[in-house]
Amino acid sequence: MVAVASASAMEMMEEPGVPDKLMRMSRASSGQRPVMLAIAGDSAAGKTTLSHGLAQALGEDRATSVCVDDYHRYDRQERKGLSFTPLHPDCNYIAIMEQHLQLLATGQPILKPVYDHSDGSLTRPELIEPREFVIIEGLLPLHSKLSRACFDVTVYLDPPEEIRREWKISRDTGKRGYDAEQVLAELDRREPESEAFIRPQRAHADIVVRFAPVPERNDPPGTPLSAELLLRPTIPHIDIAAQIGDDDLRAVHCKLGRDSDGRPVDALHVHGHAPKEESRLVEKAIWSGLQRDEPLPESLGELEPGVRSEPVALTQLLLLAHLLAAVN
Amino acid sequence: MVAVASASAMEMMEEPGVPDKLMRMSRASSGQRPVMLAIAGDSAAGKTTLSHGLAQALGEDRATSVCVDDYHRYDRQERKGLSFTPLHPDCNYIAIMEQHLQLLATGQPILKPVYDHSDGSLTRPELIEPREFVIIEGLLPLHSKLSRACFDVTVYLDPPEEIRREWKISRDTGKRGYDAEQVLAELDRREPESEAFIRPQRAHADIVVRFAPVPERNDPPGTPLSAELLLRPTIPHIDIAAQIGDDDLRAVHCKLGRDSDGRPVDALHVHGHAPKEESRLVEKAIWSGLQRDEPLPESLGELEPGVRSEPVALTQLLLLAHLLAAVN
Repeated sequence: MVAVASASAMEMMEEPGVPDKLMRMSRASSGQRPVMLAIAGDSAAGKTTLSHGLAQALGEDRATSVCVDDYHRYDRQERKGLSFTPLHPDCNYIAIMEQHLQLLATGQPILKPVYDHSDGSLTRPELIEPREFVIIEGLLPLHSKLSRACFDVTVYLDPPEEIRREWKISRDTGKRGYDAEQVLAELDRREPESEAFIRPQRAHADIVVRFAPVPERNDPPGTPLSAELLLRPTIPHIDIAAQIGDDDLRAVHCKLGRDSDGRPVDALHVHGHAPKEESRLVEKAIWSGLQRDEPLPESLGELEPGVRSEPVALTQLLLLAHLLAAVN
Repeated sequence: MVAVASASAMEMMEEPGVPDKLMRMSRASSGQRPVMLAIAGDSAAGKTTLSHGLAQALGEDRATSVCVDDYHRYDRQERKGLSFTPLHPDCNYIAIMEQHLQLLATGQPILKPVYDHSDGSLTRPELIEPREFVIIEGLLPLHSKLSRACFDVTVYLDPPEEIRREWKISRDTGKRGYDAEQVLAELDRREPESEAFIRPQRAHADIVVRFAPVPERNDPPGTPLSAELLLRPTIPHIDIAAQIGDDDLRAVHCKLGRDSDGRPVDALHVHGHAPKEESRLVEKAIWSGLQRDEPLPESLGELEPGVRSEPVALTQLLLLAHLLAAVN
């Protein structure tokens, strides 16, 4: 049984600005609702890597992953004649994305459109049934007030631009059939829309994640990127200091500071250059604090088969802690 | 702005049986909502012919037509290995159909799945935005209590089985690439599911329409089929007797009777053998009762370019009257 409308749903529509509040009220009320996590960020910012290990750690029977970049209004062929790129809200069915996020957030199934990245075509939609946890990743999940109202935890991935460009060239030439020159031209073409529509979402994230080398260090090649996590006081964060001892300072440390917009924020640094064993100890301490019966999931930190990053593992672990805490 | 959830939408989901009532309440409340018409019936019962002329009469800018047979769960290839036919609710995304009907009924857009009848494939979905009138036709729009709650007027098309079989052979061999033997085998295979899922919808229609020759007459070939319309007292019907004089009795007459299930019903007979001019006079009288500025739409009654049926025109005109009355 699916129920999407009611007397108050009607009233909502007549008072602009109210739907997001009613959505929040709805989600705050009693009843079993999925826990919703958003992972927003520009193309090739690392969204899939982050969400994939997290979904695996939760288990396929408990977590549903959805990429909202499938809400493209035009296929690759049709976009050729258009003046805007897929980053532009007008290039996407944003109202339908908002509608589907609301449905998932209230525990209802959706028939999600499917965009085939390998050939740029729009194909047969697929049924998505929300499980206990729903992980939404994509370019624009935090674009509107109404879409943001659907989430328990919101993340923005904010890698340095030169690193993201490398990632995008590597992925799009490898998996999506473009050559490097095409990817670079596309990045330039997208820049104004990235500035206008993608990056403003950073301000609405509870957690901003940046994977990057530590500037003042000169680590040897192969050193995993470090992670900086801005933990905004928009949601309660776990007290990491209470979980770990002084010995862990080489692996992580937390620092009070100001965000680039002046807002006070805790910055958690996870060091890629720390000895792996020390990072693993921190992970185990956080995991034991979560009081789970099962062992620490091995999927955390996996970049590709056989390649691990402890900063990625710790980031996923913190998100996992947030998701599990939101259930109660 | 799309709003689908609210505190009471949540409550609905926890009390089985309530969503349809809340849907009715929602639609009964103030505010501009589309007028929703359902045209249900078995395959090749004449649904598209009826709805097409009606949508044209309303105008494309005022009417949205949707075929809910596009909610197939499997494509033609996948269905080959299955024990049930497209008539079975399990062969369709019924929960999504219900969800989309609710969204349309509350004035919200949907991204509707698309089934390509020419090759039996499921393809790219399409955006449907409800206009002033929404005409929903298909095999199962009246299947559930919740789906029925979405409509202002419900119609079931009930041709005699031998006529429907002729229509289906003619259409499926002409437009859908089957041969007559395949169509007949498919009709036999579908019969148990037609009985179980399609025909029970007849009981839930406000108007049951049957196009058939008049049994006791022996009209020459080419005589249009007559129409019998059962007008159930579930909705108020226009008083046709008040619109027409005694002279019109050759074209139409109304008779109190009992439906096959014993319920009292008005049966309106529209005679295919009546002189065309007399039928047109009745149409004009009904049209003038609707007090429209524009002339009687020429699309009414068109079976194919150049071929008209006055009983079809009169049936469409009555439905048109219901739709226009529901706006106020």
